Amino acid sequence: MLALTRGDPSGIGPELALKAWLALHEEPAAPAFFIIADAEHLGALAARFAMPVPIAICDPSEAASIFPKALPVVAISEKVQGRLSQPDVADASGTLRSIETAAALVQAGQATGLVTNPIAKEVLQRAGFAHQGHTEFLGKLAQRLFGNHLPDETVRPVMLLWSPELAVVPATIHVPLAQVPKLVTFELLVETGRIVAQDYARRFAHAAPRLAFTGLNPHAGESGRMGREEIDIIAPAIAELRRQGIDARGPFPADTLFHAAARARYDVAIAMYHDQALIPIKTLAFETAVNVTLGLPFVRTSPDHGTAFDIAAEGKADPSSLIAALRLAARLAQTEAAQSRAA
Amino acid sequence: MLALTRGDPSGIGPELALKAWLALHEEPAAPAFFIIADAEHLGALAARFAMPVPIAICDPSEAASIFPKALPVVAISEKVQGRLSQPDVADASGTLRSIETAAALVQAGQATGLVTNPIAKEVLQRAGFAHQGHTEFLGKLAQRLFGNHLPDETVRPVMLLWSPELAVVPATIHVPLAQVPKLVTFELLVETGRIVAQDYARRFAHAAPRLAFTGLNPHAGESGRMGREEIDIIAPAIAELRRQGIDARGPFPADTLFHAAARARYDVAIAMYHDQALIPIKTLAFETAVNVTLGLPFVRTSPDHGTAFDIAAEGKADPSSLIAALRLAARLAQTEAAQSRAA
Repeated sequence: MLALTRGDPSGIGPELALKAWLALHEEPAAPAFFIIADAEHLGALAARFAMPVPIAICDPSEAASIFPKALPVVAISEKVQGRLSQPDVADASGTLRSIETAAALVQAGQATGLVTNPIAKEVLQRAGFAHQGHTEFLGKLAQRLFGNHLPDETVRPVMLLWSPELAVVPATIHVPLAQVPKLVTFELLVETGRIVAQDYARRFAHAAPRLAFTGLNPHAGESGRMGREEIDIIAPAIAELRRQGIDARGPFPADTLFHAAARARYDVAIAMYHDQALIPIKTLAFETAVNVTLGLPFVRTSPDHGTAFDIAAEGKADPSSLIAALRLAARLAQTEAAQSRAA
Repeated sequence: MLALTRGDPSGIGPELALKAWLALHEEPAAPAFFIIADAEHLGALAARFAMPVPIAICDPSEAASIFPKALPVVAISEKVQGRLSQPDVADASGTLRSIETAAALVQAGQATGLVTNPIAKEVLQRAGFAHQGHTEFLGKLAQRLFGNHLPDETVRPVMLLWSPELAVVPATIHVPLAQVPKLVTFELLVETGRIVAQDYARRFAHAAPRLAFTGLNPHAGESGRMGREEIDIIAPAIAELRRQGIDARGPFPADTLFHAAARARYDVAIAMYHDQALIPIKTLAFETAVNVTLGLPFVRTSPDHGTAFDIAAEGKADPSSLIAALRLAARLAQTEAAQSRAA
């Protein structure tokens, strides 16, 4: 059973949850889920968009038996205040409660993984939210909830964009391009590579994933003629990872790393910055890419899009990415459970 | 009739020329071409790879009637010295002669456009070649040959990567990533947009192409939260182009600009740097992307790959990109001629 958060209730998250249930509830081995939300709001939304989705408030332990017949809702006390397309700061506490409850239920063993609907950072920040983003907030929650059971390293979330065509990790993410060359360090790349390799073994049942690093510069610097970061930083980080027994390769020119024949030669690409990672996956798999957070003590996925406030009142949002996120979360949780049993 | 240069004779260029002739010579409306090269070397290469390509040394004026029966070769006196896969500095003068002759024949009206095979800059530089690259060298040649007939602006070559799926221009090209933020200026973007719009009208018969500019930063800077270049430089450049009557749009987040639905909304994407432009086109059209130089007083295309010295001795090179470059050059030259007649 997966825990799904509601996300910002003025965005498309709740609508996508209803659509995902419609698409999945009759499937024999469906990635079953409950949503942590205001049940009345979901009921009203189903009525508004004329979606035949029965809503059932329940305890997490009852959700599995309910899922084939109704959308299981683990209720929170915060009632939705905002209207569709018009986000309201008053909903921030409920949005955060949904995420905190989901993490606590995973920690308590009442959910096997966590799938998050999109939030709007600006809305939460106006209510005092002090984290850089969704993923960083989950990192802090994980540290608080699981801290005692973790090995001595701290929680360091790593974003993986996953689709059947391509899996890619941006080593740096939401920073201005001008800061990227300074932020790409030996330590960052080694730690990123280590976390990817570890989580691929644990959750993708892939003991020796092939990690292909991009260069930072055009043509991966052409032996230093267009930048030295490949020589001074990226190649030494790859060498260190190989010393640790990890199959790290590169740095490769980024432009020729993402066509079909190139993709067949690695399992995960590790790119140096946001657009270098997100351009190829959104070009190849715009509707179905899933955001996976590695480095957490639990499975977490999310659809690879935002709240889409602009279309939230129309009922036309495409649930493909959320459904893909649910399927992948279920697969990763099953793999991890099977590996634990085998160990 | 197109003029094809031989490129570095130790690379795959001559082999691709033989293969392109085999693929095209029986086609009724083929993009016919002659190659400017050492005829003996081509004959020996055809024999080595057992390709049934008759070679005919000729004058450019005879090439059209020869093309259906044999590969027309406009001979240069420099004999090839290097062996396949082993580039030789002694061949630099012949490589350059082939390019200079091609440009002169275009200027003399004996060729309608120029298609260039790949060169190796390092080899040429060891022989004293002082230009930044192939395209810059052609810019200088054009200035010298056509200078008297050009309007007062100087020749400013602009690289366009073209495929049926996507046309994209990198505003900066072969520079370290760390230098990109400083090099992306208002003047550069306005000039680039102007040249693209002008050449699209002249050679693609597209009087009002829709130009979509990317942002420099993730999410196009998110209203200044992740970098200010969009606000300070890119948006003003777009506004200036619109003031000049050019349909410029953006800046748009680069990661969501290259999936099929997004591509339908513009004709040419103008990206800020090398990988932002080349990742999407090489992901979508690895074998068939063509490099087009805009801003020159003649049509010039080239295959979107290098000399590939590593496979040059094997005879296995894929001529798709050269064939696409020949087809596009013929189309652009025909369009320009038709527009001139109409004017």
